[in-house]
Amino acid sequence: MRIFLPARLSAVALAVSSCLMAEATLPLMPWPASVQVQTGAVPIENSFTISVAGSGARDPRVQLAVERTFERLARQTGIRTLPHIVSPDENATLSIVVEGRDHRPPQRLGDDERYSLTVADGRIRLSADAPLGVLRGIETFLQLVQQNKTPPAGASAPVGFSVPDVTIQDEPRFPWRGLSLDVSRHFIPADEVKRTIDGMAAVKLNVLHWHLSDDQGFRVESKKYPRLQRYGSEGMYYTQAEIRDVIAFAQARGIRIVPEFDMPGHATSWLPGYPKLGVGAGPYQIGPGYGILSDLMDPTKESTYRFLDGFIGEMARLFPDEYFHIGGDEVNPRQWNESPRVRAFMHKHHLANGAELQAYFNSRVLKIVIRHHKHMVGWDEILQPDLPKSIVIQSWRGQESLWEAAREGYQTILSAGYYLDLMQTAAYHYSVDPLVLPPERKARLERQGKPIPPPPTPDQQKLILGGEAAMWEELADAENLDAKLWPRLAAIAERFWSPQSTTDVDSMYRRLYLTNHWLEWLGLTQRSNLELMRQRLAADLRYQPLDRFITILTPVKGYSRHAGRNLSSTPLNRLVDSIPPESDAAREFSNAVDRYLAAPKEQRDSAPLKKQLDIWIESAAAAKPIFEANSILAENIALSESVTTLCKTAEEALSYLDPNATTPAADWKQRSATILETASKRQGDFLIAIAPAVQNLVNAIQPDTQQAPK
Amino acid sequence: MRIFLPARLSAVALAVSSCLMAEATLPLMPWPASVQVQTGAVPIENSFTISVAGSGARDPRVQLAVERTFERLARQTGIRTLPHIVSPDENATLSIVVEGRDHRPPQRLGDDERYSLTVADGRIRLSADAPLGVLRGIETFLQLVQQNKTPPAGASAPVGFSVPDVTIQDEPRFPWRGLSLDVSRHFIPADEVKRTIDGMAAVKLNVLHWHLSDDQGFRVESKKYPRLQRYGSEGMYYTQAEIRDVIAFAQARGIRIVPEFDMPGHATSWLPGYPKLGVGAGPYQIGPGYGILSDLMDPTKESTYRFLDGFIGEMARLFPDEYFHIGGDEVNPRQWNESPRVRAFMHKHHLANGAELQAYFNSRVLKIVIRHHKHMVGWDEILQPDLPKSIVIQSWRGQESLWEAAREGYQTILSAGYYLDLMQTAAYHYSVDPLVLPPERKARLERQGKPIPPPPTPDQQKLILGGEAAMWEELADAENLDAKLWPRLAAIAERFWSPQSTTDVDSMYRRLYLTNHWLEWLGLTQRSNLELMRQRLAADLRYQPLDRFITILTPVKGYSRHAGRNLSSTPLNRLVDSIPPESDAAREFSNAVDRYLAAPKEQRDSAPLKKQLDIWIESAAAAKPIFEANSILAENIALSESVTTLCKTAEEALSYLDPNATTPAADWKQRSATILETASKRQGDFLIAIAPAVQNLVNAIQPDTQQAPK
Repeated sequence: MRIFLPARLSAVALAVSSCLMAEATLPLMPWPASVQVQTGAVPIENSFTISVAGSGARDPRVQLAVERTFERLARQTGIRTLPHIVSPDENATLSIVVEGRDHRPPQRLGDDERYSLTVADGRIRLSADAPLGVLRGIETFLQLVQQNKTPPAGASAPVGFSVPDVTIQDEPRFPWRGLSLDVSRHFIPADEVKRTIDGMAAVKLNVLHWHLSDDQGFRVESKKYPRLQRYGSEGMYYTQAEIRDVIAFAQARGIRIVPEFDMPGHATSWLPGYPKLGVGAGPYQIGPGYGILSDLMDPTKESTYRFLDGFIGEMARLFPDEYFHIGGDEVNPRQWNESPRVRAFMHKHHLANGAELQAYFNSRVLKIVIRHHKHMVGWDEILQPDLPKSIVIQSWRGQESLWEAAREGYQTILSAGYYLDLMQTAAYHYSVDPLVLPPERKARLERQGKPIPPPPTPDQQKLILGGEAAMWEELADAENLDAKLWPRLAAIAERFWSPQSTTDVDSMYRRLYLTNHWLEWLGLTQRSNLELMRQRLAADLRYQPLDRFITILTPVKGYSRHAGRNLSSTPLNRLVDSIPPESDAAREFSNAVDRYLAAPKEQRDSAPLKKQLDIWIESAAAAKPIFEANSILAENIALSESVTTLCKTAEEALSYLDPNATTPAADWKQRSATILETASKRQGDFLIAIAPAVQNLVNAIQPDTQQAPK
Repeated sequence: MRIFLPARLSAVALAVSSCLMAEATLPLMPWPASVQVQTGAVPIENSFTISVAGSGARDPRVQLAVERTFERLARQTGIRTLPHIVSPDENATLSIVVEGRDHRPPQRLGDDERYSLTVADGRIRLSADAPLGVLRGIETFLQLVQQNKTPPAGASAPVGFSVPDVTIQDEPRFPWRGLSLDVSRHFIPADEVKRTIDGMAAVKLNVLHWHLSDDQGFRVESKKYPRLQRYGSEGMYYTQAEIRDVIAFAQARGIRIVPEFDMPGHATSWLPGYPKLGVGAGPYQIGPGYGILSDLMDPTKESTYRFLDGFIGEMARLFPDEYFHIGGDEVNPRQWNESPRVRAFMHKHHLANGAELQAYFNSRVLKIVIRHHKHMVGWDEILQPDLPKSIVIQSWRGQESLWEAAREGYQTILSAGYYLDLMQTAAYHYSVDPLVLPPERKARLERQGKPIPPPPTPDQQKLILGGEAAMWEELADAENLDAKLWPRLAAIAERFWSPQSTTDVDSMYRRLYLTNHWLEWLGLTQRSNLELMRQRLAADLRYQPLDRFITILTPVKGYSRHAGRNLSSTPLNRLVDSIPPESDAAREFSNAVDRYLAAPKEQRDSAPLKKQLDIWIESAAAAKPIFEANSILAENIALSESVTTLCKTAEEALSYLDPNATTPAADWKQRSATILETASKRQGDFLIAIAPAVQNLVNAIQPDTQQAPK
């Protein structure tokens, strides 16, 4: 059945190319390799059916994905589609054809993920050469389901939902598209990990790199070495049954799970249960503080390697993926250097320093990993000349070290620029490309007169497998994890999947807004859980003023909140823990200020900006009594005053920018500079995200333009 | 450790009695039988520990409740309290002493639920004579955990959470405090049922009456008669493993599960699989429409009773509770009367009509139920003279039939007045008391010159076991169930638990506001899921204007939305499905109007009312383009115009009520009357909940009071 085309599509269809139109209207993320939109649509009603045919039709991943599709359609539309899987010869609404009988789990790096999706003539056709393509294509199909728009007056459209006619050919740019998830600093229960996997699958990520041990906690049950979890986890660890359950959950969604056990540093949590692994005298306890702790494994004892052989063997059986991550980052060699025994060992083996001793350790561990039929993965530091080319280097240092490893013939993935815990914007992460040297880095090299590294050759590019976003959990826990990941992770997922040319930031944010919504239909809580946290903070007072107040705030960026008083036992229940990493309101305000300043002076309309500022002033006033009443919120009283002052300064600046405004009084510029200097700095653990836009307004006031016209 | 008392408590403590103070400040619901507040508090920090002692300490319900307490404290405070259960002789923060080794599941009607809770001298002590008392007391303890208020200037209070010093003695008023949950009209998956049970336990309800079959679906797996679920459920039913899981979940929370299989009417879903159970010719299909359908079981065939014996036997083993509900309501005897065979049977057995034939059927079913060691429960209609006194009559008719049954020596529970699907206010349900004849009913009897039924004697009162809220699912599904139940169900729970004298509606609403919040910390979605539904409706437009617009709307009340176009397959995805049953904003506006009108004319301040009306006018204006753009929302365009018109009328009325106002123009009263007549009626499936308050404003304009003063 062909139905009336949603209004926006049809109105625009004749005027612009189908590709631009699609970009403007389709809420797809990541953007497919090729999209062509036609007029027409297929309605989604409760008669919706699916058929599956082809040699891969019985693949359990395909079967489970089809079953989930009915549930997800119900969440997305409110229409209870009965789970009707019909035989291929019937006219199913969604016909899936999939080949690839031999693609069996465990999924491997490079498995075929291509698919094509055609919506036309009242039917939806999805075809793929392998099961993973079906999974990716179903996500695209679900993103296409939209409520029908009301057509222009006179026409009539059906009430309900439909999928627009479209032809999509799609495949990923990189085969390794991951999230590295720290569950040591704060434990993330299995249900939340599953929720994260659901979100990852929705944006076509395919690797969960599970950072399972660190100084603050050892999070996996070992049956061979049970003192690991007994003394290293405070009771918060995954049983092996839970691990298997999460792996099955991920496999069903086309996501590999790569376990990481960090060694020989970041390894404090191994030591309370097995102090002989350590180089120090002990006794040990898991680290309440963060940073690079001093406790190291002892690389000089054969017992260390016997232990690791037993442990890695057990974990290699538990985790089916081909890859096994040994961490290897941030080793502070002090304990080694201070130990006479270790020093003697280094002397005997001609190891000049800690780095060489770590290389020795790595080569021993590598043999163990290989003996248990795994490829080794490690951070930048593990790279040393004699490693086999089957390993993967994960770069936290940046494109230069990434490319260098590729030049040496190693497979690499990029994480630098994708650290979600540092509270950068989606636009920032979106701008980072594994194959492009960041402009600021390039400029710096040029300033320093250093050579610009050559971009990777096509053969080297093949070794650059992709990247991983990284979420470290020092300042996040299960309650606000979703908000720290989403929606920014979707923008990174697009960088890893979509063609390199997909770089339009406005389009990304437009689609990210809708992506953020349908991620919630999957059960992600990035919005609802932060609201609950603010509701908890407001106690018996109305919490809505807090919701409005925080829209122009972000947490401080980078590592400035990590130091000092934060321990793993410090509650993450303050206002700063309850806000999103990025301020959409501030970005929109900044864009509006830019448009305002770019307009010819006589056409400038400051009213919308002033109205917005009024709302923020009012919200700060409404938030203040809530801050004053509640002990945990009291620290934010000064913040509400800063916001008020800044917004009033912005309104004054707008008044001075009016075509017929007077020149600001002599002291106003001085006063506003002082206010802006304060407001642009860290306010407790917050930044006021509109401060740069206000600065732009103030900067635009030139004395010579401020003469009141007669 | 004693800490500074939260400010509000201490400021008031000297001035009023402790009971009144407690009423004013403690967010307890249901309100305990006895509460005394002292000054002082116990901090809740991550050093929090629990000890359990007494002969009931090993009861699994107690053990599990203690484990859940740590998790729930973390949700309520954001403080990760490590699950430390210490031995009784240590100084635990919360010391539990519980007797009653012999109280083993299954829980029975009348099991001891009393507890006492004392917070003093830096410790919290909970004691009970039986495990259920511990469960109830832990809920009270968790409700007492509050963020410390900032004290008056000069004093200092710790940042964080605490429990105020308090002495509580508590026990329930009624032993049967239930929710009847229909899962036939729309299926409610097991996870949502569990979430409901969590909420029930939090407000001390103790019976889930699970309405498992009706015309629209048969929701339990029968291994003996598998065609029941195969042809009667469209694939939506609970497996027996799921049933056992839910029962265990409920038992752990001190909640009995009473299954209902409705017969011989509301039984269409039995018949597609087993048409011989029916009196008609068949074939049958499950009912897409609602109401009293015509399909009945055939009470004349011995095969019917053999089937029911097999089925009830299987279910009696699956459900451990002593009680078994056979429904028995709303039998339309037309099919019986039209069947020559049934008529012949009635003649032979001297059964004058359908009611007598149903009584015959009931007596046969009763024997089966008794043979399987259960007590029978049924709706009003099953009551007939020769039933044993062990049965329970559930009254949907009201106090009179309830009391009548008690007079005849039957145990009874009240559901009339507690139908949550009829969209009444919490205050309405709160006013309904099993032992009090509703005033309007009493007045009617007096008008009719009929005798007022005598209230139950103390002995009869013992037979009145309590009541059940009822949630029928014609117009609700898993997506909005929580919003249909909560928070109103908490007010009904208070009616069933708290002393009869607990009737202050303002206090109820004040506590209900906070109760609604902490129910969300349990995972209930009454707010978040409705927001998601509105977000879905707004599609690519901002949904926040919808959030503001709907605050003064409610769905139509009673059965007026049930008829007509609604089938069980009709999507419940419209704006009306996404709003709460009750408008807090309208109630507050109505109270504000009452205060305004009650004030001396010269002291009236209309500014706050006008400001509120301005916000609603603005929200209607902001919602209208969202309605216009989206096909499912388009039906609400006229509604946004009605709201605007009504709010403007209210503002005009306020202007005429100003001390120095002019008299309204001649046509204004006529025009406002017309506007109010329209706005007070059903608008689509909505009511504009502020209309009565606006009517009060308009009514207050008397021509003689409108003379402009000189």
